[in-house]
Amino acid sequence: MTAPRFTVLYRVTPDDDRSIEAHAKDICIEQTVEIPADAVPAGHWEKGIVGIIEKITERPGTPTDYDVLISYRVDITNNEIPGLLNVLFGNISIRRGIKIVDISFTPDQLKAFGGPRYGIEGIRKALNVHGRPLATTAIKPLGLSSPELAAMCGGYARGGLDVIKDDHGLIDQHFHPFRERIARIAEAIREGNAKSGNVTHYYPMLAGRFDQVEAQAAFAKEQGCFGVLVPPFLIGPDTGFYLARKYDLAVMTHPTFSGTHFHDPRHGMTPAVLLGKLFRLFGADISVFPNFGGRFTFSREECVELADDLRKPWGGLNGAFPSPAGGMTIEKIGTMIDAFGVDTALLIGGALLRYSPDQEVSARAFVTGLDNAMKERKP
Amino acid sequence: MTAPRFTVLYRVTPDDDRSIEAHAKDICIEQTVEIPADAVPAGHWEKGIVGIIEKITERPGTPTDYDVLISYRVDITNNEIPGLLNVLFGNISIRRGIKIVDISFTPDQLKAFGGPRYGIEGIRKALNVHGRPLATTAIKPLGLSSPELAAMCGGYARGGLDVIKDDHGLIDQHFHPFRERIARIAEAIREGNAKSGNVTHYYPMLAGRFDQVEAQAAFAKEQGCFGVLVPPFLIGPDTGFYLARKYDLAVMTHPTFSGTHFHDPRHGMTPAVLLGKLFRLFGADISVFPNFGGRFTFSREECVELADDLRKPWGGLNGAFPSPAGGMTIEKIGTMIDAFGVDTALLIGGALLRYSPDQEVSARAFVTGLDNAMKERKP
Repeated sequence: MTAPRFTVLYRVTPDDDRSIEAHAKDICIEQTVEIPADAVPAGHWEKGIVGIIEKITERPGTPTDYDVLISYRVDITNNEIPGLLNVLFGNISIRRGIKIVDISFTPDQLKAFGGPRYGIEGIRKALNVHGRPLATTAIKPLGLSSPELAAMCGGYARGGLDVIKDDHGLIDQHFHPFRERIARIAEAIREGNAKSGNVTHYYPMLAGRFDQVEAQAAFAKEQGCFGVLVPPFLIGPDTGFYLARKYDLAVMTHPTFSGTHFHDPRHGMTPAVLLGKLFRLFGADISVFPNFGGRFTFSREECVELADDLRKPWGGLNGAFPSPAGGMTIEKIGTMIDAFGVDTALLIGGALLRYSPDQEVSARAFVTGLDNAMKERKP
Repeated sequence: MTAPRFTVLYRVTPDDDRSIEAHAKDICIEQTVEIPADAVPAGHWEKGIVGIIEKITERPGTPTDYDVLISYRVDITNNEIPGLLNVLFGNISIRRGIKIVDISFTPDQLKAFGGPRYGIEGIRKALNVHGRPLATTAIKPLGLSSPELAAMCGGYARGGLDVIKDDHGLIDQHFHPFRERIARIAEAIREGNAKSGNVTHYYPMLAGRFDQVEAQAAFAKEQGCFGVLVPPFLIGPDTGFYLARKYDLAVMTHPTFSGTHFHDPRHGMTPAVLLGKLFRLFGADISVFPNFGGRFTFSREECVELADDLRKPWGGLNGAFPSPAGGMTIEKIGTMIDAFGVDTALLIGGALLRYSPDQEVSARAFVTGLDNAMKERKP
């Protein structure tokens, strides 16, 4: 019986004169046995423990690059996030000209990692919001006091926002200690919800040390938060997803500190693979990413591909909300809907803060903007 | 009283026509308050909560780039690893053309993070090895059985190697489950040490999920391991350092999955900053990195700068061993000593496996090679 395998599509730009086959073989070895080919035990080749080159396709263009499809045994990843990332791109992250452009998992892998716990449907149901994108904002800026931040959130809730997340810079600083901030904001949102009759969810930032982060997740749950903001590259690729599952919290992922993967089109992972496919597989219900047209580097095509990977049918996995952010404004709502469609968590941060000194007014303008844009787009 | 600040030296290559001052200001805002400048509360500027441009220096060359020195308040990082990385390079990792080339910490920051627990001196004392580099190897390849791996380690210990680490691909796979592997290898090394009268240390790979990794560290300690192999980018930047401190284990860091920082000379962090300065600050006693002249991308200059940052006097922090690895051979020992000096943990992996089918013979050749090279270099 052959051991199950999954495949990774690497785009390889050779950095020397060796053949593409030699480069592909390097990857197969580097990501598994990591020893010279002539030192690999004979049985290892037969058992497929070394990566296997499934297909090499030359692509048109200059410089010449190639799509290299490599398969690995599933069991060498141990179906755990650290082990999977290690096999996908561990040591070759330190070599040149290798980009992961796609990954195909087996049904058992999808089941093992599990994907979004709530997904688009679960979050919509809990919010009771249908037929339009979610109105989402970030609590800013760091350095205000907890009561000041809570007052803003109360306004946003009264104004009918769907989702409020901590700015990712809000951690456990003395300006607004984690527990004090979460308790006050959760309370302000509860009061706002009671007044408006709407439901607003709050996702506090999970960024503590190893010994703090579980207590932070538990506290968020205790305070009635629907989810948490998870920065996989700050607290560990596995940490936030694991804790959210344990404490039955939704996951909104934040891409902070992950961006070196995207800087070079010939190295790293594409936004769709890392912030789309992998984060969804690991359990993201909402994936925040830097939108095109803002102050970041993603192209429109990259953003749309990422959104597709979050939502398209994929085994039995729930779909996740793409959450384009960064330099977004109420004026751009229509453009955003045209680019991303309805199942999107539109995130307007700084511009909402600027819109009016009264957060309730700003929130209402955001939601009204969404409703109007949807009406314009309906027959 | 002004709040204490630390400084980060960014090398910035503007990706548009705006002035370097505008780019520098972007970084100051993006890494702190993350809102449009006109929305920043007035008091925030006065309190220095926004990053401050300390100095901008144009560098010669094409394309034009600049050294931009920015200071941040220490307290916005909360003196924790996730918070510090977030301020250093969180969101700007997703912008273009920004490289961290140096960081200056305050004495209080050095104290808060603490640096290497054992350091060069502590490890030398425990090994009773002085006046030559450490002979270090990796246990390879994954997919053998635990008894097979343990037998190899027994040979290495009898032959007098100083440090044996797991290959970073050895996690908790069914081929060699974590506990079984660690117990058997630790036992084989104890027996080998008893025979040789030498001391060989073992560093098993810490790569479990959030809910497994602490038990793994505790088990390693229980089995008498001197340290653990910590992959910060797989298990979380803080996780392994925290656990090693808690269980009184030495830390050998592994750079797997961190390499996107180094691919582009105009983006990310330099090897010296990430694998040298930061890993040492966080607690690395030995930092493994891909050597020049092997199959990876670091230049000789980058490797030497990294090694310097690990060892040079730095507040009261212990020095850490640089551990150049990747494509190293016994023949290259002299070259390595000339490049890195005596306080180095030379790591020969695949080539040692290839040297002889008898690991005791290979280990002895390695140690003899070190002794001879040192003799040749003494007056």
